[in-house]
Amino acid sequence: MELEFIKTLIKPADTKIIFLVIDGLGGLPLKPLGGTELETAVTPYLDELAGEGICGLHQPVGPGVTPGSGPSHLALFGYDPIRYQIGRGVLSALGIDFELQEQDVAARGNFCTIDEKGIVKDRRAGRISTEKNRQLCEKLSQINIPDVEIFVRTVKEHRFLLVLRGQGLSDDISDTDPQQTGKEPLIPGSSSSQAGKALDALNDFVDKAKVLLSEHHPANMILLRGFARLPQWPSFQDVFGLQAAAIAGYPMYKGLAKLLGMHVLQTDPEIESELQILKKYWSDYDFFYVHVKATDSAGEDGDFDRKVKVIEKVDTIVPALRELKPDVILITGDHSTPATLRYHSWHPVPVVLWSKNCRADAVGKFDERTCISGGLGCNLPAVDLMPLILANAGRLEKFGA
Amino acid sequence: MELEFIKTLIKPADTKIIFLVIDGLGGLPLKPLGGTELETAVTPYLDELAGEGICGLHQPVGPGVTPGSGPSHLALFGYDPIRYQIGRGVLSALGIDFELQEQDVAARGNFCTIDEKGIVKDRRAGRISTEKNRQLCEKLSQINIPDVEIFVRTVKEHRFLLVLRGQGLSDDISDTDPQQTGKEPLIPGSSSSQAGKALDALNDFVDKAKVLLSEHHPANMILLRGFARLPQWPSFQDVFGLQAAAIAGYPMYKGLAKLLGMHVLQTDPEIESELQILKKYWSDYDFFYVHVKATDSAGEDGDFDRKVKVIEKVDTIVPALRELKPDVILITGDHSTPATLRYHSWHPVPVVLWSKNCRADAVGKFDERTCISGGLGCNLPAVDLMPLILANAGRLEKFGA
Repeated sequence: MELEFIKTLIKPADTKIIFLVIDGLGGLPLKPLGGTELETAVTPYLDELAGEGICGLHQPVGPGVTPGSGPSHLALFGYDPIRYQIGRGVLSALGIDFELQEQDVAARGNFCTIDEKGIVKDRRAGRISTEKNRQLCEKLSQINIPDVEIFVRTVKEHRFLLVLRGQGLSDDISDTDPQQTGKEPLIPGSSSSQAGKALDALNDFVDKAKVLLSEHHPANMILLRGFARLPQWPSFQDVFGLQAAAIAGYPMYKGLAKLLGMHVLQTDPEIESELQILKKYWSDYDFFYVHVKATDSAGEDGDFDRKVKVIEKVDTIVPALRELKPDVILITGDHSTPATLRYHSWHPVPVVLWSKNCRADAVGKFDERTCISGGLGCNLPAVDLMPLILANAGRLEKFGA
Repeated sequence: MELEFIKTLIKPADTKIIFLVIDGLGGLPLKPLGGTELETAVTPYLDELAGEGICGLHQPVGPGVTPGSGPSHLALFGYDPIRYQIGRGVLSALGIDFELQEQDVAARGNFCTIDEKGIVKDRRAGRISTEKNRQLCEKLSQINIPDVEIFVRTVKEHRFLLVLRGQGLSDDISDTDPQQTGKEPLIPGSSSSQAGKALDALNDFVDKAKVLLSEHHPANMILLRGFARLPQWPSFQDVFGLQAAAIAGYPMYKGLAKLLGMHVLQTDPEIESELQILKKYWSDYDFFYVHVKATDSAGEDGDFDRKVKVIEKVDTIVPALRELKPDVILITGDHSTPATLRYHSWHPVPVVLWSKNCRADAVGKFDERTCISGGLGCNLPAVDLMPLILANAGRLEKFGA
């Protein structure tokens, strides 16, 4: 269902919602027919919640699609991630806590290696160190462009963020990254007649960067892609009528929450700190998005046992969540990150929804295999979670008479 | 799937279909982990049918959305209720059996209370009695408007139906109901330049009504909303190629069936009477929509036990349905009406489909929790039921070669 439709049904209520996202929750067994990370973990409190709640598996984007953290979180928050796409430049800015302004144009940058003929030999400049990246970004920051302010910020290894700030800059600019070696960097173009100023500024910047970097082989050139401005989307508050707070320690998640108009509460990324913040601000908001990153990090490190331990730690805070007497608790992941794959995956993600009127199913254990037979189904589109949460919170009007 | 697509696949057949709608069938347990109304009811014949049929749960509109009876029935009949929306004025007319003509403009009316400055103090005039409503509607019926015929009909308590009849009346008219107290009734407007005649007639009517009602505090003014004409939709017969009959005792359901072009058979609302009508007309139609209202009424009264008893009574007629040798039987509800909530709810609705070729699943009990594991899934869009029925009735061609 579309946001525009759900918005027409919103009604106010004095109910409180906890939305706990265990990043990369879903997993895979170490060997065929073994247990996943979640199946291996001992999670009495999550299992108890599953017993009293309604369970299932959600599809962040769609069957077979492995989502990035941006799209998967948008889907959890009810925004169709295929319709609501964030440019890579903006995602890069969110990821390093760079405060984008409304008119800024952001791009994702790579340091790369070119040969004497200008042909790209390595799109990642041998993955230079983050420290070297910092030195080069400082150099590039000194470039002067008439009428346009330039920001160049280190992301990690060969990756950086470029932001152009000024009046009337279009973000309708094509990539300079040819996406393969053996070619020259592309000349950026545009489908818009309004893009002249931005293209001039960009070409000027790239020319000057090439000169400045010429002595810094292997990082002797830059490639840019994903030019984008902050999207103008309906806010979470506007669509759902919720006073929402985000409790997340990592920039990318804080940035995304802020983009949707949630209030970002300062916290350490540890679950205990997040719980303290949740308690402290409990009376101030209707909706609390709480984000646990460590599961995903363990999965990406290929550390099955560590991911199991993080899940067990999250389990121990479930009673504290319930003691707050929320009207609705939803616990899920944004996507799967199986330790065996060391990467995000396409597998659907376990979800438990608890409320007084949730209509409990027969599922009494919170894991991938058991949730298949849950009342939410095993292919629930993630964007349908928000309407379900709102219904359980008494915040949706009847549709039609 | 869209009606336009299904229509291209329709082929004729000599098969008969019974579509039994147990209004508000789905429910909730009285206490956590208890049984719902349907789970509590003893239903050997429904369970037997479930054992031989294919089961599941359908979503009338979508996850989390609580439907009114209009949208939920449209969905059961295969019409996407978000695309096919009936104006409230037309629904009001259907609900009291008022025979709308093609050019009529109908609106839902409220008697309300205004103070001496014209400010709305109570949008429902203290919920005056239906008897008082009748007296006032008679008065308002005497209002004369040049070139436009006026009908004012009692619905219930403070609610009435207004119909404007005449040539060239637009229904593109905004509400006069401000939807809150402390404001004056709104001046109706329109986005259409063709609405002049209707607006003039309406303003004239409202002015005269205000004068006529001035002595009838608390019902000393009216508020109007949901101006609408009969929708021009493809008929059930046109889309599905079915000679369809409706056996329903309540006006709203008869009206809706008629709107789709079904033939409405006269019946008392009791299930035994409906069964007699079904038998009597068995040879005359292909498709029989049979509607049981008493489940929903019990749910809205908060009477768990009565709802259980009604379900048990419906169960006893299942053998008689089967004796008619229909090719397809589908039994479901239009939405859930848990007695604990005393109101329609968003919970998905159990459904059983039986035919010779239905491919029975392992479900052998017809209730919310058991149907979760049925072959129709637990999130089947209600609009997909009609194509499934048609397929089981041998009435759909292969798509493509």
